Amino acid sequence: MIRFDSDYLEGCHPRILERLAGTNLEQTPGYGLDPHCERAAELIRGACAAPEAEVHFLVGGTQTNTTVIKSLLSPCEGVLCADTGHINVHEAGAIEATGHKVWALPSGDGTLNAERVREALEEFGADPTREHRVQPGMVYISHPTENGTLYGKEQLEALSAVCRSYGLPLFLDGARLGYGVMAEGAELSVPDVARLCDVFYIGGTKVGALFGEAVVIPSPGRIRQFRTLVKQQGGLLAKGRLLGIQFEVLFEDGLYFELARHADRQAMRLREAFLEKGVPFLYESVTNQQFPILPDGDIDRLLRDFSFELWQRMGSGRSAVRFCTSWATRPENVDALIEAIRKL
Amino acid sequence: MIRFDSDYLEGCHPRILERLAGTNLEQTPGYGLDPHCERAAELIRGACAAPEAEVHFLVGGTQTNTTVIKSLLSPCEGVLCADTGHINVHEAGAIEATGHKVWALPSGDGTLNAERVREALEEFGADPTREHRVQPGMVYISHPTENGTLYGKEQLEALSAVCRSYGLPLFLDGARLGYGVMAEGAELSVPDVARLCDVFYIGGTKVGALFGEAVVIPSPGRIRQFRTLVKQQGGLLAKGRLLGIQFEVLFEDGLYFELARHADRQAMRLREAFLEKGVPFLYESVTNQQFPILPDGDIDRLLRDFSFELWQRMGSGRSAVRFCTSWATRPENVDALIEAIRKL
Amino acid sequence: MIRFDSDYLEGCHPRILERLAGTNLEQTPGYGLDPHCERAAELIRGACAAPEAEVHFLVGGTQTNTTVIKSLLSPCEGVLCADTGHINVHEAGAIEATGHKVWALPSGDGTLNAERVREALEEFGADPTREHRVQPGMVYISHPTENGTLYGKEQLEALSAVCRSYGLPLFLDGARLGYGVMAEGAELSVPDVARLCDVFYIGGTKVGALFGEAVVIPSPGRIRQFRTLVKQQGGLLAKGRLLGIQFEVLFEDGLYFELARHADRQAMRLREAFLEKGVPFLYESVTNQQFPILPDGDIDRLLRDFSFELWQRMGSGRSAVRFCTSWATRPENVDALIEAIRKL
Amino acid sequence: MIRFDSDYLEGCHPRILERLAGTNLEQTPGYGLDPHCERAAELIRGACAAPEAEVHFLVGGTQTNTTVIKSLLSPCEGVLCADTGHINVHEAGAIEATGHKVWALPSGDGTLNAERVREALEEFGADPTREHRVQPGMVYISHPTENGTLYGKEQLEALSAVCRSYGLPLFLDGARLGYGVMAEGAELSVPDVARLCDVFYIGGTKVGALFGEAVVIPSPGRIRQFRTLVKQQGGLLAKGRLLGIQFEVLFEDGLYFELARHADRQAMRLREAFLEKGVPFLYESVTNQQFPILPDGDIDRLLRDFSFELWQRMGSGRSAVRFCTSWATRPENVDALIEAIRKL
Repeated sequence: MIRFDSDYLEGCHPRILERLAGTNLEQTPGYGLDPHCERAAELIRGACAAPEAEVHFLVGGTQTNTTVIKSLLSPCEGVLCADTGHINVHEAGAIEATGHKVWALPSGDGTLNAERVREALEEFGADPTREHRVQPGMVYISHPTENGTLYGKEQLEALSAVCRSYGLPLFLDGARLGYGVMAEGAELSVPDVARLCDVFYIGGTKVGALFGEAVVIPSPGRIRQFRTLVKQQGGLLAKGRLLGIQFEVLFEDGLYFELARHADRQAMRLREAFLEKGVPFLYESVTNQQFPILPDGDIDRLLRDFSFELWQRMGSGRSAVRFCTSWATRPENVDALIEAIRKL
Repeated sequence: MIRFDSDYLEGCHPRILERLAGTNLEQTPGYGLDPHCERAAELIRGACAAPEAEVHFLVGGTQTNTTVIKSLLSPCEGVLCADTGHINVHEAGAIEATGHKVWALPSGDGTLNAERVREALEEFGADPTREHRVQPGMVYISHPTENGTLYGKEQLEALSAVCRSYGLPLFLDGARLGYGVMAEGAELSVPDVARLCDVFYIGGTKVGALFGEAVVIPSPGRIRQFRTLVKQQGGLLAKGRLLGIQFEVLFEDGLYFELARHADRQAMRLREAFLEKGVPFLYESVTNQQFPILPDGDIDRLLRDFSFELWQRMGSGRSAVRFCTSWATRPENVDALIEAIRKL
Repeated sequence: MIRFDSDYLEGCHPRILERLAGTNLEQTPGYGLDPHCERAAELIRGACAAPEAEVHFLVGGTQTNTTVIKSLLSPCEGVLCADTGHINVHEAGAIEATGHKVWALPSGDGTLNAERVREALEEFGADPTREHRVQPGMVYISHPTENGTLYGKEQLEALSAVCRSYGLPLFLDGARLGYGVMAEGAELSVPDVARLCDVFYIGGTKVGALFGEAVVIPSPGRIRQFRTLVKQQGGLLAKGRLLGIQFEVLFEDGLYFELARHADRQAMRLREAFLEKGVPFLYESVTNQQFPILPDGDIDRLLRDFSFELWQRMGSGRSAVRFCTSWATRPENVDALIEAIRKL
Repeated sequence: MIRFDSDYLEGCHPRILERLAGTNLEQTPGYGLDPHCERAAELIRGACAAPEAEVHFLVGGTQTNTTVIKSLLSPCEGVLCADTGHINVHEAGAIEATGHKVWALPSGDGTLNAERVREALEEFGADPTREHRVQPGMVYISHPTENGTLYGKEQLEALSAVCRSYGLPLFLDGARLGYGVMAEGAELSVPDVARLCDVFYIGGTKVGALFGEAVVIPSPGRIRQFRTLVKQQGGLLAKGRLLGIQFEVLFEDGLYFELARHADRQAMRLREAFLEKGVPFLYESVTNQQFPILPDGDIDRLLRDFSFELWQRMGSGRSAVRFCTSWATRPENVDALIEAIRKL
């Protein structure tokens, strides 16, 4: 069985394990106050072209989203996002558990349209009953989105401009950021993200690390008491250096980007194979997640040798499925899948 | 200026003020542990044909919704409701502030369809990622709805049956319950509501009282520690007897229902007048809120002598507006409005 | 049975009921946006000598404490208070329910000592693990305290100075403020309170009103989105004018202060009677609550004709009890109690 | 510089790193649903002599405490604990952030006395105002305590009996459980803990793992929806197998207990050395944390070559300090410290 279910099937890039072994008996202070975290932060500031940025390391995505969002909102504010946003669907109500409404706006492809946000804010501003409503407090987006799609540069600039004109912080969930910036035709670089967003994170869990998300706050001090908030949310790892060490390895010579490009390329090979067969896609993804729509018979045939996720029933005996590649995907496994696709 | 803006424009029925004056210097224990609350509870149990029911008195609707909902949900559960539900729109995120997602389902007219609830629950049950989602924990409905519409008896029985088959408590917001049960052609009585719901409340604020909502829990003990939860939410009135006294007056000889019927009848007179002019309605309401769709010119004309609420722009120079009647609406004011409608 | 159990045994001052009757059929906008609330706010600004102050009307004390405190704290901050503080003991965890620790400091008499607060803040500032602790976010005091005791002017100035030097808002719970400022020898006036605190409230429930607490924010804008936060907490009364009307009556010609003085005087008469018999007191209260320590036999004797609260067992067959007077206490009832005390 | 600051200075036992490397390219399902977690759970059930127990793996202690406590409490309940309890002091208000009061009881040595708990519960039960107070909902203890002290078997049996007679779940924070059960003269075994507590966890972070805490629920189903609650709290690790793999290594042949014994022995050697010099201790710890009270001059002398934590100023030029040993402490480093102690 060759697995394409998700991008967190394996452990981590071997160089990380080596480094963990090499540093294992060092004695360092806890909670991220060690030299490895310091150096990793410095490397990330470089990658972001944001020399003043604060960088914090957390363990996982839900934890990171929750901590950042509760840090930025006042008690009667909510967070605007696409209805497909991870925080709206797959985080078990973590945002609401901190007291805030997730204010979901319809989205076709997973992105949040600047115009739609502006309309929602204008509608809110014009509503005479707005004092009785949840106040808009910030905007959350994912890049790549949960559907594998990307923001274009103009699109993110427009959204950022709307947010700034309304004084709303823009927070970008970069759980798969590497796969986004390294995709063919991607318009946005990490420095672009740092320039256009108020807070974002660079996902490690899905891009080569055992775990770990690096939160970047380009304007230092933008969030007060952030470390205490991370502690309160249960995200301050005692042996914080484990995060620093991993991000050092990923960012000291571009390994992060290399791994992401590999995954994107393998995904594009799959995409080509489906396109050649005339298979339509649920979303136009150029990143490591691909959502072809297949007849149920073909799905069953592929499931004999490959595992992947059933995404959505489309009616008429067809379903959208999800194939993920990752930094760890072996080209020969992709070859095998392509072969099978051609035989459908 | 004659006002039809809302059903809480005036104070209260004069008999309530008289009773408050008559009992003013009685010395009673606080926090609802007084003989007036006891007698009011007994009267309400009678009106509900629920001789074992617990009855609690709270001050306002948002407070009541919040207290009941946080009492019934575990930390990762959410409350299903119509997207037009008061808790989803006009309570400033009170439910989320207690940690719970409002799980809004689309609704045309303000009611929540039993089949739609079943589908949502089935979809949830079939979702392999459901462990990562907010768990369905209860169902909230309003009767009459925020749009003035009513549940039929079969409709509520069907919804109640779905809830019971899934083990989800059904909670009915009866802020305007009187106007619902006394409407022409209404199918549901208060005892029906008591039989089909796990918790509901009988709204006083909008039906003749100064303030006050009577929460009814037909199966006693269904909610543990309810009085402490009310205290925690800031809803345990020190001079609790003020609530008891008001509900005594309203329920000792049917005044509550009489006042509601009066408002419904005045609303029906308005409705007739609009229908005679061929004016369409946004919702088919038979209760005290009416939502005619009028050309903007006609709206301006009416606004010279009458106040009412602009509800929704419909395009093409027309808007839906809301006229409310109440226990306090004077028939001669309705006459005047009808006159004006006829002249449009 | 003559009752001295609490200061919320009766309804309200008759002039309030008269005014409610006189205004009953006025039609006003809801939620505190009516002319009565406007005028009451203006009268209160005058009484506070704070011409710019924001004034908001809420229904009860727990609700007010919760709303103000959650409005002022960021998510990892707590509120410092005396261990006897109402929010620490008798509000069913309402503050914690909004996510914040009540950081209780020991207090002998119910007041919070400026030096003790400074020490706590210095200890916190010197603790190398302070990032892992709840951050001090504000200070809560009651005046009079729950024990009937008062802050002196120097004492409150010192506390206010400590708070300001640390940037912590000072919030004063004035549920019984009238009884405090009108007590014999009281050093603090309402304008003093307005000058030294960042937020406070003037309690109506216990000083002549049916219910209602007037929140004063001397520097307008000090709390963002306050009305929405009140709504979220369930404290925005639909018929908000009921609060405005009551505070108009209380403040238009000094009735509030007159009623408070009456209660304080009756309490002093009781105090004298106990002192004459050599009875010791648990707290040195000059306000409307008195805490004599009596042999259990004497308590039983008094309980035949009077009701009052058992406060604390003191050992050796003695207990502290609480007698409350109020705006409604009749001097002849105090005469009767004094008579009984003399016979002990 | 030889460091004795904490028990999380190093990475992990080398066998864990080896196993991580050996399993690195396995493809497994995420979120703890993999064979490693399954096997680790089975091994832990064995170590607990609790064949039916549920076992869940979380990342860190604060996260675990928060998740378990919010899972067990209803909204107006609080958690009783010693005032020195980790949740009361060093978790940044994480428990309060989920809406619950930490109800701290005084403790001399860090343990929570059964009699004191019973008294608190009796006092609560006898309080006529108890409806207005936070309700007791569960009991939290640490073993070893934050002060390194241990519960005796009778002591824990007594506490467990009190909890059960009041229907309160007993939750044991075992962040350092290994050091507790392997201490010289320890009376409690892991199966004892499983028998006497309703939930507890076996700490990995401080006892040989990179990170990880294994929650044990001896009666399966005792907590509903636990996995979703873990997800909501941000504790469900995507690559959950990392936790399973670590606990497999620790429990498959007793490594966990061996490492703990090593640390305890090294601590006892330090303890002996201090005792020989007549140095008093702040707490009578037989586990891996030692709290000698030293003259400030001696502290300065030791700080030249060793690092450790300043714990508490004792006055008169003396302070209590904390030395921690761990699974990774090298005997020769302890030799060096003993040498230095002898020279004081």
